[in-house]
Amino acid sequence: MTAIITRNNDPKSVGTKGSQTYLYSWSTTNGVRPTILLELLEATYYLNKVDISKKIQKEKWYLEHNANGKIPTLAWIEADGSITYVNESAAILLFLAEKLDKKNEFSFKIGSLEYYEDIEWLFFVLSGLGPNKSNWKYFSTLPVKNDSAIKKYRDELLRNLGVVNTRLQRNGTGYLVGKHIGLADIALYPWIRKEQLPGLEKEIEQFPYVKKWIKSFDDNANVQKGYSVFKQ
Amino acid sequence: MTAIITRNNDPKSVGTKGSQTYLYSWSTTNGVRPTILLELLEATYYLNKVDISKKIQKEKWYLEHNANGKIPTLAWIEADGSITYVNESAAILLFLAEKLDKKNEFSFKIGSLEYYEDIEWLFFVLSGLGPNKSNWKYFSTLPVKNDSAIKKYRDELLRNLGVVNTRLQRNGTGYLVGKHIGLADIALYPWIRKEQLPGLEKEIEQFPYVKKWIKSFDDNANVQKGYSVFKQ
Repeated sequence: MTAIITRNNDPKSVGTKGSQTYLYSWSTTNGVRPTILLELLEATYYLNKVDISKKIQKEKWYLEHNANGKIPTLAWIEADGSITYVNESAAILLFLAEKLDKKNEFSFKIGSLEYYEDIEWLFFVLSGLGPNKSNWKYFSTLPVKNDSAIKKYRDELLRNLGVVNTRLQRNGTGYLVGKHIGLADIALYPWIRKEQLPGLEKEIEQFPYVKKWIKSFDDNANVQKGYSVFKQ
Repeated sequence: MTAIITRNNDPKSVGTKGSQTYLYSWSTTNGVRPTILLELLEATYYLNKVDISKKIQKEKWYLEHNANGKIPTLAWIEADGSITYVNESAAILLFLAEKLDKKNEFSFKIGSLEYYEDIEWLFFVLSGLGPNKSNWKYFSTLPVKNDSAIKKYRDELLRNLGVVNTRLQRNGTGYLVGKHIGLADIALYPWIRKEQLPGLEKEIEQFPYVKKWIKSFDDNANVQKGYSVFKQ
């Protein structure tokens, strides 16, 4: 484990020797994206666990850096001690990849075709599959069920999973883009791993490429560290 | 107007002298993003209007390049005649900006802090405000109204507009990022201009920075050309 848990809300408290990664996050589908990338990179980083059940992300000091009041937020501490804040989990992935993944092990060279493909699939996950998944869950867990809304989002989620299956089949490498794990894979996994799709076990069988892809992430020890770091 | 309307579905039909922009799109909130950017740049481009009411985007030839069956899709024709396909409207904006906006008039230098801020707000628009707006509209126009769903998405849309208002106030330039129109502004405008927010006129008054921002886009002739090109 390469995370250093911190409970001091001021990133400067961790010291300013060289550039440092200081992350405000929590163990949600959005919140684990940067920790998965950081653990894959075996990077050393500071993690400030922002308990969203206590609405810490809506406190005034937090809203100063993230008017949307959401986790995660990255405070990137420059070598000179100045701080750059980056919000939105996928934007954080792109920023961290540039700073820390110099060999493009989990990302792609900026400006390359694969770089744009990775961004294309990031948007597909964040603006398409993700919101449908969230809405399916929302309507499925309401005390008063709304069957037509549940069906709408369930159908669209399954259609999106079919799109991912087609993409994985066409790319043929076991990943969404190129020949290795990319940022879009990291963005997708938290939303479609088993515990996130209760009752869809049979439907997943229709998507053998997706099923195999999920297993490869289930079996990746560093990916799983991205989750377990929140239990420290 | 700098668009050349084409009805030939094969991008190679337009000739391969130099690199060429060939766009499959339609006049939806997602579909006008690239045309707004291209008109702002006063670029020459080929536009193939894909009538989504006729489900052309679900035809087999289209799905070969866009398994998600959505518009817009960019077919970027390289100088050697080869073609690069890019999907997802925000990814298309980033790609086109690199190819055509060399002076960063409507985008930001790749890798700069403003580049990441632009990406951050692109994700906010595409994964936050946009889906809430779509869902508010969906539930508002159902024959059988679902008041709690309408309220959920309306409240979240208004909260998101408040976040945009705070951002515009803090940035202080009249734009989401930096000192000029950026890709996130282009992505946001189609979803919150007047005709898109019926019945929220009074609520918009609470957000003076958003109101002023919308007006500046309403008054921008090139932005409006991004819409009128679909009427050709």
